[in-house]
Amino acid sequence: AGAPSPTLELASRSPSGGAAGPLLTPSQSLDGGRRSGYIPIGYRGSYPIGRDAQADAKFRRVARITVCGKTSLAKEVFGDTLNESRDPDRPPERYTSRYYLKFNFLEQAFDKLSDSGFHMVACSSTGTCAFASSTDQSEDKIWTSYTEYVFCRE
Amino acid sequence: AGAPSPTLELASRSPSGGAAGPLLTPSQSLDGGRRSGYIPIGYRGSYPIGRDAQADAKFRRVARITVCGKTSLAKEVFGDTLNESRDPDRPPERYTSRYYLKFNFLEQAFDKLSDSGFHMVACSSTGTCAFASSTDQSEDKIWTSYTEYVFCRE
Amino acid sequence: AGAPSPTLELASRSPSGGAAGPLLTPSQSLDGGRRSGYIPIGYRGSYPIGRDAQADAKFRRVARITVCGKTSLAKEVFGDTLNESRDPDRPPERYTSRYYLKFNFLEQAFDKLSDSGFHMVACSSTGTCAFASSTDQSEDKIWTSYTEYVFCRE
Amino acid sequence: AGAPSPTLELASRSPSGGAAGPLLTPSQSLDGGRRSGYIPIGYRGSYPIGRDAQADAKFRRVARITVCGKTSLAKEVFGDTLNESRDPDRPPERYTSRYYLKFNFLEQAFDKLSDSGFHMVACSSTGTCAFASSTDQSEDKIWTSYTEYVFCRE
Amino acid sequence: AGAPSPTLELASRSPSGGAAGPLLTPSQSLDGGRRSGYIPIGYRGSYPIGRDAQADAKFRRVARITVCGKTSLAKEVFGDTLNESRDPDRPPERYTSRYYLKFNFLEQAFDKLSDSGFHMVACSSTGTCAFASSTDQSEDKIWTSYTEYVFCRE
Repeated sequence: AGAPSPTLELASRSPSGGAAGPLLTPSQSLDGGRRSGYIPIGYRGSYPIGRDAQADAKFRRVARITVCGKTSLAKEVFGDTLNESRDPDRPPERYTSRYYLKFNFLEQAFDKLSDSGFHMVACSSTGTCAFASSTDQSEDKIWTSYTEYVFCRE
Repeated sequence: AGAPSPTLELASRSPSGGAAGPLLTPSQSLDGGRRSGYIPIGYRGSYPIGRDAQADAKFRRVARITVCGKTSLAKEVFGDTLNESRDPDRPPERYTSRYYLKFNFLEQAFDKLSDSGFHMVACSSTGTCAFASSTDQSEDKIWTSYTEYVFCRE
Repeated sequence: AGAPSPTLELASRSPSGGAAGPLLTPSQSLDGGRRSGYIPIGYRGSYPIGRDAQADAKFRRVARITVCGKTSLAKEVFGDTLNESRDPDRPPERYTSRYYLKFNFLEQAFDKLSDSGFHMVACSSTGTCAFASSTDQSEDKIWTSYTEYVFCRE
Repeated sequence: AGAPSPTLELASRSPSGGAAGPLLTPSQSLDGGRRSGYIPIGYRGSYPIGRDAQADAKFRRVARITVCGKTSLAKEVFGDTLNESRDPDRPPERYTSRYYLKFNFLEQAFDKLSDSGFHMVACSSTGTCAFASSTDQSEDKIWTSYTEYVFCRE
Repeated sequence: AGAPSPTLELASRSPSGGAAGPLLTPSQSLDGGRRSGYIPIGYRGSYPIGRDAQADAKFRRVARITVCGKTSLAKEVFGDTLNESRDPDRPPERYTSRYYLKFNFLEQAFDKLSDSGFHMVACSSTGTCAFASSTDQSEDKIWTSYTEYVFCRE
């Protein structure tokens, strides 16, 4: 645990040759054991507005599932289904808000989180509207939301 | 469990001739036993805006209840009240966001989920507005929301 | 319990002369015992927008409290404070989204639900805006929301 | 407890000379003991919109904290920090949605509720927008929200 | 504890030479012990609207994390990562809504709260829209939201 590594800053706080427990908080674990933490899962939704919206687009559409939190936790949970291309080479003790998943089913992400001992503690949604201005009637009327599901492992 | 099937990828991870337990996570169960998982129930609401809205339309209106999650879980909970026509022939280990219910009472869906051991863990709503442009005063003023109730079985 | 009734479909699933338990799910109870279920309480709020809103209208205004869920549960909880005029003669095993209360204090409804063994499990709100078009500056600027509190009895 | 009082209607339901328990629900208590109930705390927020909003107004602004619920509970929790001027002389067994607090820190209200045995069970927010019309560019662009935190004592 | 201090008002309520417990509520602690309380963490988000929004800006963007609550609790949890410049010299028993953090990762704040014994009890989001008026098409179309995560230590 004392070897040069991305977690050096944390490791240097560990006592040499002793149990790291007393000096480490629950969200810190040098031996790779199970650690506490939060992982929010989010997506931005879009919908047609107006008469077309009534006809067909009733279903949830998820274009991309984003993952926030400590990079080591995200990698532990999602493994090779995690796309790190937008925030590459992030040290394991650092945080990111630019990971996303290679699949687009929220419940698949929920199951992976559940399998790793996380449970959903909260969710929230924000909505807004975009619309055609009076001089541009051809613009599509869409609106987007950002919905976030917060998972926690204690 | 080793026969060619849509769940082959999962099945191939099962030990031959032994208890599947140790290699399967809580959300995986090859013997058809009770499995953990998430099922979000959603609907899009619409309301008249303006003076008419004040007069009568006080009540919740649900045009269609959508069901997301693993197809096998959705079928276990909702049985033949599930409409799979928008996402037919989906293998049981796959996920969907295009199932919906043949009835329109949210609480009836809640009860079916409760009867199968699920409980509500979160809900969220997004709202937006649609409105008449300055050149089209005849358009109905409506707004739509997307409300989602997330259920979990542990 | 086997007599012709609106709950015949359910009643016909009951074993004759035996304990109904094994064939009934938690949300079903033929002997009038305590049953599990969900009751969402909702209201639509309205507010003035603009400078007037800053002056006085700080308080929550509830014009009508709507009640959704199984009719028998709603009647058990709210008794003669329940207005069924918008969905009359609804069989006890059916669901409604058109009941409302004869009083307008949300907390009074919460207390009645609590007294019947229900507790709040979630709430959500959606908001939107209505506004004056460029050709009609006299229209009042109001916005409405729909807020829902979901109660459950297990 | 049998003296003429605003709670006479309730008091008349109490058995004379016996334990009131069996006939009183958890939200009713004639002897001034600890009672169950809900107290929602709310506020309406306002924000500048546009470039100014990016510069400074990052912080939550609470102009007035409103208190809803049974008047006796509100008085028990908030004591002389409760402003009853907008709903004066309200009997203790009645409900109000027009009390507010003499201070403007939400967490101070949370602490008082916590000290009285209440805990937060839910919160929700609604947002909307107000904006300048095409003929009145001088109007301030603000938006308001209503956020509510629901507390419960069981 | 009896020395002149910003907490004098509270200190004066403490019995001299005795256990302070019986006269202090759970949110009050003169000996620096672990105290109950609420700390909401918030941020305001901004997003491009329209076609550009579809292309890239899928990720959550947090410009500043604000901290509300009792100043002593905020300092205990966040230490020197707390920026008090917008509300300096605040006595420890007072409340603030103008602290913010020197880092911008929400999950890092969540972990610090978790390490101090707090857990998330609720979260909410409000959204709105800002848009170009008909006479100013050059204005960027953005919208902002305010999202708040409420943490509690019991």
